[in-house]
Amino acid sequence: MSYDPSNIFARILRGEIPCKKVFEDEHVLAFEDIRPLAPTHVLVIPKGPYISVQDFAEQAGEAEIVAFVRAVGRIARERGIDATGHRILANHGADGRQEVPHFHLHLVGGRDLGRMLPRE
Amino acid sequence: MSYDPSNIFARILRGEIPCKKVFEDEHVLAFEDIRPLAPTHVLVIPKGPYISVQDFAEQAGEAEIVAFVRAVGRIARERGIDATGHRILANHGADGRQEVPHFHLHLVGGRDLGRMLPRE
Repeated sequence: MSYDPSNIFARILRGEIPCKKVFEDEHVLAFEDIRPLAPTHVLVIPKGPYISVQDFAEQAGEAEIVAFVRAVGRIARERGIDATGHRILANHGADGRQEVPHFHLHLVGGRDLGRMLPRE
Repeated sequence: MSYDPSNIFARILRGEIPCKKVFEDEHVLAFEDIRPLAPTHVLVIPKGPYISVQDFAEQAGEAEIVAFVRAVGRIARERGIDATGHRILANHGADGRQEVPHFHLHLVGGRDLGRMLPRE
């Protein structure tokens, strides 16, 4: 599957759709999820055209990878959810119920997040 | 909180407890979860003493970070779950219901993984 440049996160990256920005640098953008599932629910995305975490892991340059991971740590610290706990997750494809075909990491916290996966 | 070197993943890293190894390099170990929640359920851990993804993101060196992310992509590809989908997640602290205080990323796939978070 090739990257679809009309997906909503690509449009946010091009400034065609607004977002509530949390963090930005050369490689990374983070913003508030518009349908938060927890008191903290931030989406962290690379600026490059990656559909899945696998694409990102295989294709991104080292500087992009480091910037992405550092951003996740920075945002978790700024939100003050280290003491109470948090969860990161990223969905891919049908089994993962991915909704937007641009790799995005959810950082959630601020409440008991429950079981990490529903049973089959 | 300081890192507890008696946690089970530290013991696996020291070879005191066996694991079903999936991948290993200088910085990373990946192995089968002993209580799998899906047909693929692999744990990917850095070899360094990090409790949370935040610790890892803030304290790990660039080579460790790159090796970790590349390993996740490699394992997802080897498991053949790119076409069907997968989810990565990592829990921290009480709200995240973290069970072992050594940062570990769950890579799950092979079935419909359901909603990404239970409602409040």
